[in-house]
Amino acid sequence: MTTAYKRLDKDNAAVLLVDHQAGLLSLVRDIEPDRFKNNVLALADLAKYFKLPTILTTSFETGPNGPLVPELKALFPEAPYIARPGQINAWDNEDFVKAIKATGKKQLIIAGVVTEVCVAFPALSALEEGFEVFVVTDASGTFNALTRDSAWNRMSNAGAQLMTWFGLACELHRDWRNDVEGLATLFSNHIPDYRNLMTSYNTLTQGK
Amino acid sequence: MTTAYKRLDKDNAAVLLVDHQAGLLSLVRDIEPDRFKNNVLALADLAKYFKLPTILTTSFETGPNGPLVPELKALFPEAPYIARPGQINAWDNEDFVKAIKATGKKQLIIAGVVTEVCVAFPALSALEEGFEVFVVTDASGTFNALTRDSAWNRMSNAGAQLMTWFGLACELHRDWRNDVEGLATLFSNHIPDYRNLMTSYNTLTQGK
Amino acid sequence: MTTAYKRLDKDNAAVLLVDHQAGLLSLVRDIEPDRFKNNVLALADLAKYFKLPTILTTSFETGPNGPLVPELKALFPEAPYIARPGQINAWDNEDFVKAIKATGKKQLIIAGVVTEVCVAFPALSALEEGFEVFVVTDASGTFNALTRDSAWNRMSNAGAQLMTWFGLACELHRDWRNDVEGLATLFSNHIPDYRNLMTSYNTLTQGK
Amino acid sequence: MTTAYKRLDKDNAAVLLVDHQAGLLSLVRDIEPDRFKNNVLALADLAKYFKLPTILTTSFETGPNGPLVPELKALFPEAPYIARPGQINAWDNEDFVKAIKATGKKQLIIAGVVTEVCVAFPALSALEEGFEVFVVTDASGTFNALTRDSAWNRMSNAGAQLMTWFGLACELHRDWRNDVEGLATLFSNHIPDYRNLMTSYNTLTQGK
Amino acid sequence: MTTAYKRLDKDNAAVLLVDHQAGLLSLVRDIEPDRFKNNVLALADLAKYFKLPTILTTSFETGPNGPLVPELKALFPEAPYIARPGQINAWDNEDFVKAIKATGKKQLIIAGVVTEVCVAFPALSALEEGFEVFVVTDASGTFNALTRDSAWNRMSNAGAQLMTWFGLACELHRDWRNDVEGLATLFSNHIPDYRNLMTSYNTLTQGK
Amino acid sequence: MTTAYKRLDKDNAAVLLVDHQAGLLSLVRDIEPDRFKNNVLALADLAKYFKLPTILTTSFETGPNGPLVPELKALFPEAPYIARPGQINAWDNEDFVKAIKATGKKQLIIAGVVTEVCVAFPALSALEEGFEVFVVTDASGTFNALTRDSAWNRMSNAGAQLMTWFGLACELHRDWRNDVEGLATLFSNHIPDYRNLMTSYNTLTQGK
Amino acid sequence: MTTAYKRLDKDNAAVLLVDHQAGLLSLVRDIEPDRFKNNVLALADLAKYFKLPTILTTSFETGPNGPLVPELKALFPEAPYIARPGQINAWDNEDFVKAIKATGKKQLIIAGVVTEVCVAFPALSALEEGFEVFVVTDASGTFNALTRDSAWNRMSNAGAQLMTWFGLACELHRDWRNDVEGLATLFSNHIPDYRNLMTSYNTLTQGK
Amino acid sequence: MTTAYKRLDKDNAAVLLVDHQAGLLSLVRDIEPDRFKNNVLALADLAKYFKLPTILTTSFETGPNGPLVPELKALFPEAPYIARPGQINAWDNEDFVKAIKATGKKQLIIAGVVTEVCVAFPALSALEEGFEVFVVTDASGTFNALTRDSAWNRMSNAGAQLMTWFGLACELHRDWRNDVEGLATLFSNHIPDYRNLMTSYNTLTQGK
Repeated sequence: MTTAYKRLDKDNAAVLLVDHQAGLLSLVRDIEPDRFKNNVLALADLAKYFKLPTILTTSFETGPNGPLVPELKALFPEAPYIARPGQINAWDNEDFVKAIKATGKKQLIIAGVVTEVCVAFPALSALEEGFEVFVVTDASGTFNALTRDSAWNRMSNAGAQLMTWFGLACELHRDWRNDVEGLATLFSNHIPDYRNLMTSYNTLTQGK
Repeated sequence: MTTAYKRLDKDNAAVLLVDHQAGLLSLVRDIEPDRFKNNVLALADLAKYFKLPTILTTSFETGPNGPLVPELKALFPEAPYIARPGQINAWDNEDFVKAIKATGKKQLIIAGVVTEVCVAFPALSALEEGFEVFVVTDASGTFNALTRDSAWNRMSNAGAQLMTWFGLACELHRDWRNDVEGLATLFSNHIPDYRNLMTSYNTLTQGK
Repeated sequence: MTTAYKRLDKDNAAVLLVDHQAGLLSLVRDIEPDRFKNNVLALADLAKYFKLPTILTTSFETGPNGPLVPELKALFPEAPYIARPGQINAWDNEDFVKAIKATGKKQLIIAGVVTEVCVAFPALSALEEGFEVFVVTDASGTFNALTRDSAWNRMSNAGAQLMTWFGLACELHRDWRNDVEGLATLFSNHIPDYRNLMTSYNTLTQGK
Repeated sequence: MTTAYKRLDKDNAAVLLVDHQAGLLSLVRDIEPDRFKNNVLALADLAKYFKLPTILTTSFETGPNGPLVPELKALFPEAPYIARPGQINAWDNEDFVKAIKATGKKQLIIAGVVTEVCVAFPALSALEEGFEVFVVTDASGTFNALTRDSAWNRMSNAGAQLMTWFGLACELHRDWRNDVEGLATLFSNHIPDYRNLMTSYNTLTQGK
Repeated sequence: MTTAYKRLDKDNAAVLLVDHQAGLLSLVRDIEPDRFKNNVLALADLAKYFKLPTILTTSFETGPNGPLVPELKALFPEAPYIARPGQINAWDNEDFVKAIKATGKKQLIIAGVVTEVCVAFPALSALEEGFEVFVVTDASGTFNALTRDSAWNRMSNAGAQLMTWFGLACELHRDWRNDVEGLATLFSNHIPDYRNLMTSYNTLTQGK
Repeated sequence: MTTAYKRLDKDNAAVLLVDHQAGLLSLVRDIEPDRFKNNVLALADLAKYFKLPTILTTSFETGPNGPLVPELKALFPEAPYIARPGQINAWDNEDFVKAIKATGKKQLIIAGVVTEVCVAFPALSALEEGFEVFVVTDASGTFNALTRDSAWNRMSNAGAQLMTWFGLACELHRDWRNDVEGLATLFSNHIPDYRNLMTSYNTLTQGK
Repeated sequence: MTTAYKRLDKDNAAVLLVDHQAGLLSLVRDIEPDRFKNNVLALADLAKYFKLPTILTTSFETGPNGPLVPELKALFPEAPYIARPGQINAWDNEDFVKAIKATGKKQLIIAGVVTEVCVAFPALSALEEGFEVFVVTDASGTFNALTRDSAWNRMSNAGAQLMTWFGLACELHRDWRNDVEGLATLFSNHIPDYRNLMTSYNTLTQGK
Repeated sequence: MTTAYKRLDKDNAAVLLVDHQAGLLSLVRDIEPDRFKNNVLALADLAKYFKLPTILTTSFETGPNGPLVPELKALFPEAPYIARPGQINAWDNEDFVKAIKATGKKQLIIAGVVTEVCVAFPALSALEEGFEVFVVTDASGTFNALTRDSAWNRMSNAGAQLMTWFGLACELHRDWRNDVEGLATLFSNHIPDYRNLMTSYNTLTQGK
């Protein structure tokens, strides 16, 4: 029953950031806020770093759900930005799907708030249309662990692969030699333990 | 191995509330009581809101298991109500199955107490007969997390989809534009964080 | 080193509700939101029930902290309501202290958001002025358990008594015979397990 | 600031079992039910074993709170049994205090349901009257850990000593040589790990 | 991908109790000891109650692993008892497999210590030979949750069904009317919350 | 037994940052790393913001303990910086104590790694010399919760006050009107939930 | 849907230890360090004990990731040791794969740091090439439980079997009679509870 | 209310190891076994390292409690060893107290199994006689966290100081310059994270 290894390929992957909105974020309680903020920004940074086509979408951003968090808007000023007029499943929005298909990529990396809706619904729709789907579990958040576990179960059973931003970065990069400096900077900015390793190492080897 | 996206359709779904009885509720210890009460009532409210045919059933309600919680009885005064004379698996009760089939729906949304029995048994039976089954994990409760995890595993392996009431509501509603007010009210009544978002929003935009 | 039993006396107690504001509530993560909402409303209901003078105060309610949650405003339409212009420690606000002293009570029951600031600061100030202080730990919330534990430690060491709303209600009521119906209703509305006990009991004894 | 060691003395101690009633037990959620049941019965067994005067009391036992658990009634058929007509703090009931004083003991071992009320109130009253109070923390239960921690803090600050049934038994017994068989049986009946040690030991040394 | 509902049938099921030995039990740390002891005895009681053929086996019981816990030996004095001379996977022991096949049953209910070895190995072997396997997760124990989760994953992926003793009892019984008294007694003896429900119920309805 | 309220006064307080070194940080496991990093930087920012004299010290920074984390060095380029040659208790280093006394402040705010050593030892020494000590519990870290709880107990019993960085900031600031913008920026930079509140608020009120 | 039992065979298994490096170990926070160290050394000891061909590999060991932990180097002085110049997925390194294929084994036992990268990537690659893969979950570590759970899900869905070192040892050994002394020593060295059983047993039976 | 800093002095301290017996250790479930074993051995190693007089005692070591763990016996071959004939509180044994007084030390460092009995009883007795008592919380174990918390509360209220082995070592050592090598070795042997720091450091600075 083993399946072929669906391996991320930076030339064939796009990133979908779904509903990381200032209001909705107050609903996220399955990950501690400092960690969640860091994970979302790490995912955004890696999308940037690997030059992956990235698509932003929001749900009802002029209502209580609130605006997209400004950091994401600032990082992707030219990305397709679909403020959905009402569709809960982003895949039900034609512009969103059009933007995805315009990238020509077949591997979709999805993160969002809340996991069981804003992530799971487009993930399931994308799988049905034959895309390979990679859910960024640690950059997606929801009400509590029970809800998250239910959502993971549903997506995983439908064929989605559950990954975290660090695994994504490593699988996309393939080989440190492609750019040691760049990857190390990404890790240093988002993994305090790794930053500490680098600080100690640099101090000992370069006296700085 | 991906399966087609079994998507909830409000015109093809029925809700089964199994054994939410005053006595049996004292057995539920895998979810904190305030949260559990809220989840069950939220599920009931959404069944009402989407006008889903709803079926109530109880097990031995004149014994220690106790009566159905009054709120559910009050919300669905005209729903089929099957006080089972002894069958533990509600599906073994002909009236219950008849009531389900009378709805003509093929998607069954099931919640109950306790998860591994009152939910799992009819869920497995329904799957065997070809229904699509959606277990409302956060409106179902049992003795402890170990028991719950075992039950989820069994149901999921048999093809049931694990969801929570919020995901159900969103998948059934599809688009906020179908009724912004109605859905927002449902959320405000059952999600304190969402209520707070609305309070702040309304105060700022409407001075109330 | 034992101290005299500082026992709550309903004729000598006032309730201070500090900064339960829609925005600030999104900071509370040491108690699950359904439970926290219930605890705050239970405290409010018992203040009402025992006719304890109650004082409401908010911090910067026209800014991001947001308005007082509407339920509290509605429950105490005639209570002193001090929208503080800037003082973080409510005790630094003369109107607030004046309102407290106007009650003539020497026992102060305090709850608020967030625990280590909005509760702890006035609690410490009140203790210093010779009041007996009862912190309602389960109707006060903050960022996380570590913060809460620190705040409890500081307040307890200064002489505050840590209690929960249920303990308060019981200590204020003293004897069920003072009003069985009233206290039972309070418990039934805010303790799902107690409500279930009553449902089963009433069904068996009164057929309802 | 060290205090003299208040050491339990089996000739000077009495046990108070407060409100271990079938209904109220459904409120206990800070200890898992199998463990709690075992702890309460272990405490009862040790009271029996050390022939400590034991006093039973209940609150409103004909209402939803339910009857005293039958095992306790059966173990202490001749113990003073005070079915309180309404007093929440058992110490407010004259018969209860009279029964305690009739024992002539100055060390009171208290356990009950729920901790912050049925245990804490009489504990605080007893301390005020100069008794030495030993709270059996693991045979007392309440809604959740936050409530328990608040109650422990209040009682401990007032001078109560927090102990568990095993510590009580050891401090009362003083020396295994007083009765090896008896104490070992008590432990074997209530500590599965100890029972296993004895099973292995007996098998190896006595072939049984 | 749904599978047929493999439903337990009391006429086609046998119980295998593997290595519940006094020494090995000290390794079990993924379930609290009072709860685990209760679960194992509940499973044994239900095997008795449903008259399921039961097979006992031990590993090296004369060494540090220790003897079978005496309660199990006492409950099943005439059950096949295979003290394995060395095989770790009980299924590698011919007598064990012969005893199973002699029962003529095709549904095997397995529990043991430790989960990933004493339970998983025979479970996997039995599945391979075409038996239906039901793992009693709460009567099986091991070093910690991480180990347990790994073992569950392996067994579940191989086709085993994860159940708990309560679910087993309910699925085997099918209908309360088959014997209300018997099942209620089983539950009352092993579920404190259920016992309390019965105590309150009986007191109210029968005055006892 | 109540004590006078020892209230932080920004004109009488100094900050001691003890051993936040790149190597030692890998020992901190009682707080998740993203959160801990944020807390330490928040404390540093508030020291800056309130212009509190700040003293840095390290232990054996040329060995495995590693260098001070660069962010702290960068934030306080002119602060006294005592690289201790060997004293484990920083208070045993004369330069450190001299630097503290040179500030003329009597309230010492201490944070460090690890809590039970680098924080507790100087805290206890400072208390003995009559300083008021405020331990920043969430900017201090150690091996695990058990160790932390022991350290808190020892410090608290000796008279230290346990606080968190947010409480410190609020107690030092006293009144929002002293500088709304400044304090809000501090909170926005270090409390994701607060940042989200501000984002939504600003968007609604200022269209940005 | 049951699969054949993929049973470990000591004549057909090799062990891959991937990136257990001194620096990377500071990233592991899903297992407590004492336990993790013990698990890794237990796995190494069992590889030795069963004479399984073992392959060591490291990633960038001259940088911040740090050197292989010395104990592993010391235990396998003659094992193939591939210090990868940059490939993140060890399987992308030809020497590594060549070393594996040179063993002629078809069952690969993999452990490493961090789970979702250093373990998951080669595991997925090996599965794709038709190897049977056994992940040693308790000798593999990563940032947190959420990350681990995602990685387990991905590997398990691809056909990897999740095991722990103890299960591995038992499945490889098959029968205690193959060498009682050797296996018992392995367990005694790495399972404190087992060591205690042996100590008590030996004392009673051999007076030592 | 601050007390003088009771600081450990290696010339005035003795270590009491109470009842670390092979059988009793199976009762310890508030600390994971690998961690607990390490902590106890670390404490023993530091007693050795600082040449603190150390006293061993056991309770009923020829019965189910089992023998002292052999490592402790081996480390202190010449230490006073009191196999108590029955006294549960070691302080009730004259030889034990005599051995303590013979050391001439006034600071007693106590660890043992189980915390609320074997540690708490002699700790309370020693405090009463005017000794300074330092409880090694992480080298003492008991049934569960609730029991531990009760025991800590009792000991702390009586004046005991709660410390962990690492804090002890640091407070006894005072200054790294007293012996860098020795202390570093102690830490490297018992703190995996510290060992890793040293491994990386040594590799970079000394090429080993």
